[in-house]
Amino acid sequence: MDFPFTRLKGGVGAPLGFLTSAVSCGIKNPDSKRLDLALIYSEKPCNSAGAFTTNRVKAAPVRVSQAHLRKGDLRAIIANSGNANACTGVQGIHAANAMCDAVAKPFKLKRSEIGVASTGVIGLPMPMLRVEPKYDELLERLGPKNGPDVAAAIITSDTHAKEVAVSFDLGEHRIRIGGCVKGAGMISPSMATMLCFITTDANIPSDSLRKAVLECVEESFNRITIDGDMSTNDTVLVLANGASNMPLIRRNSAICRQFRRALRWVMLELAKAVVRDGERVTKFVTVNVTGARTYLDAKKVAEAVCKSALVKSSWNGGDPNWGRIIHAVGYSRARIREELVDIHIGGKAACLGGLQAETPMDDLREAVSHPEFEIVINLNQGAADYTMYSSDLSPEYIDFNRSEYAYWKQARKDGLV
Amino acid sequence: MDFPFTRLKGGVGAPLGFLTSAVSCGIKNPDSKRLDLALIYSEKPCNSAGAFTTNRVKAAPVRVSQAHLRKGDLRAIIANSGNANACTGVQGIHAANAMCDAVAKPFKLKRSEIGVASTGVIGLPMPMLRVEPKYDELLERLGPKNGPDVAAAIITSDTHAKEVAVSFDLGEHRIRIGGCVKGAGMISPSMATMLCFITTDANIPSDSLRKAVLECVEESFNRITIDGDMSTNDTVLVLANGASNMPLIRRNSAICRQFRRALRWVMLELAKAVVRDGERVTKFVTVNVTGARTYLDAKKVAEAVCKSALVKSSWNGGDPNWGRIIHAVGYSRARIREELVDIHIGGKAACLGGLQAETPMDDLREAVSHPEFEIVINLNQGAADYTMYSSDLSPEYIDFNRSEYAYWKQARKDGLV
Repeated sequence: MDFPFTRLKGGVGAPLGFLTSAVSCGIKNPDSKRLDLALIYSEKPCNSAGAFTTNRVKAAPVRVSQAHLRKGDLRAIIANSGNANACTGVQGIHAANAMCDAVAKPFKLKRSEIGVASTGVIGLPMPMLRVEPKYDELLERLGPKNGPDVAAAIITSDTHAKEVAVSFDLGEHRIRIGGCVKGAGMISPSMATMLCFITTDANIPSDSLRKAVLECVEESFNRITIDGDMSTNDTVLVLANGASNMPLIRRNSAICRQFRRALRWVMLELAKAVVRDGERVTKFVTVNVTGARTYLDAKKVAEAVCKSALVKSSWNGGDPNWGRIIHAVGYSRARIREELVDIHIGGKAACLGGLQAETPMDDLREAVSHPEFEIVINLNQGAADYTMYSSDLSPEYIDFNRSEYAYWKQARKDGLV
Repeated sequence: MDFPFTRLKGGVGAPLGFLTSAVSCGIKNPDSKRLDLALIYSEKPCNSAGAFTTNRVKAAPVRVSQAHLRKGDLRAIIANSGNANACTGVQGIHAANAMCDAVAKPFKLKRSEIGVASTGVIGLPMPMLRVEPKYDELLERLGPKNGPDVAAAIITSDTHAKEVAVSFDLGEHRIRIGGCVKGAGMISPSMATMLCFITTDANIPSDSLRKAVLECVEESFNRITIDGDMSTNDTVLVLANGASNMPLIRRNSAICRQFRRALRWVMLELAKAVVRDGERVTKFVTVNVTGARTYLDAKKVAEAVCKSALVKSSWNGGDPNWGRIIHAVGYSRARIREELVDIHIGGKAACLGGLQAETPMDDLREAVSHPEFEIVINLNQGAADYTMYSSDLSPEYIDFNRSEYAYWKQARKDGLV
């Protein structure tokens, strides 16, 4: 962040006026004690905004949350892992609505004030019989210190919970932003199999918040890729309750821009954490395309390189294979000229003017041996640039994704299929 | 093929009037005795046509062959494996020209009558010092029965040589078509890391041949995908020498259409062979999209499904995961409606109207347990369809592609880098 800030503990629970909780329903596996149902609730009404998957196949909770945001602002979010409630038809919409009602009724809110999100296996009905008995416990546990439980409850194949919280001064007032994210598989622009919830006690108008959220998502979550797959469930929800007691931020003011920068920083932290914790990922690679004729050309090149199975395999092998990188540059459909392309790996020239540079191979191998490194692709044709955050593709990723049969067996045991 | 034909032995050497040969230069590895330089030569002048990679990064031999085809017809093809001669600048063009000259001079042909093709590692200069001493042997070995040597000389990571030859009647004349192909990695529309050479003794005008080749490539090689990467070297070259002594085929005649059908059949046989022999492939999957509004919609859906790492991982695991298929359908950018999508796997309903069908899971698992199976995705929105041929993605693929370091080490030993 380009201004002073303090890291806080507590994730989405860190901003003032938010209560959180999580419980274990055994949604994926009845015998598991893992947290899998979470609630975020603001004691005050919120302004809110969201961003969702652009996949035409949308999970029921995505459709429901989108509809609720169109009606007005959200004040609470209920989310589960273990089942995506996607491709579940009318029954899935009923389940998502029921989850909203379970929060709306005790707090005397409208159903449309509740956001809902799910992540997990696609195509299986939600096992609501295991969720419903846990609503009371979910409400009882609500408290100001359970943010980390929310982060833990939404993960699936992630290896650890991912959250961040910061405080900083906006004008004369100290405000807080907290967030948590769930990633791991199906991570690709635009958006990922990804749930992200962000809370703040800043006092920002709905329209400014919506604009900031869309811009910040474009510059963070839309710039990461793990496996090139785009999920049915991607959801970013942001609640701003103004509990810091600051005056309402004026539209387009310096304060508003400062808030936007902070929000972008939080989202980028969470987005990078998603890549670092991608399924069986061993390398975190920043791909920086410069010198493109247009923003779109730069983006096409970055996406082609970051999604190439051959490039990602070579990263996994610690092989500084610029030949595979330039071949992806070539098929990106961007306007490039082979003889102008420079590629630097970890600051060292691998390819200059489309040809092998003189850097000793062992120096390049050293550069890609690190768990995190940067690749700069200069097209030398203009002034546009684009940065993406990507990972290697490992044999273990494929192995890990070979079968979800165990889930189906459980669903049959539950009488759901 | 939809008319009677006979399979022949001999690949590109089977049609009348073609002489072929191959030798071992040790291009990739000086200690290897593997065939890696091949020659196809027609005793009579040919009509010819070609199709090439659309990658903007084009290997030197692609640029040279394209230029030669613009000048007129080819009569011979020289090809090597072990080095792609890509990203090699002016030096690479010189090497490709030198390979053409080595064939043109002894036969007193123009350089522009020779096609040239290379496949192998990108970015390393061609080790011409190992190629040049072998030209004499390449010419001495020329004979009518060495077609299979050509097929063997162009393979890289392929597990076996791939060729086909057929004879059939066109009107009152018996003609022959022979072909060989090299595939394995970087296989994706449009075109693949793929070299394909086809010979025929049919007597077809250049313009009809060119049209037939472009159409047949679109319906064969452009419909296969293994890893979603598109190479710098893809080349299809077709030589027709008329040595069957049939009269010239008339444009747009029934005979011309029959020839086109046969050519398409040969290309599709070779294209499917490429998928079946893809790097570490265990499943051959035909994805048939029907009921799309437009051809382009059907194509987008087929490509999204066939390129999804998650879908391909599930095929590897023998998991009939229709949820991952429909999520790829959703992000394909085709106009689809989730609630209309039907998915059949191996003839059994997996998803009807966007929802889990009632077929028992074990039946679906049985369907995907075969090494070859078909997936039909009916969008129920129109009459357009599109078929693609794809494979699974295996942990062994990644492992196999982790590093090409050994090649670089050899290149350094050769003083090339």
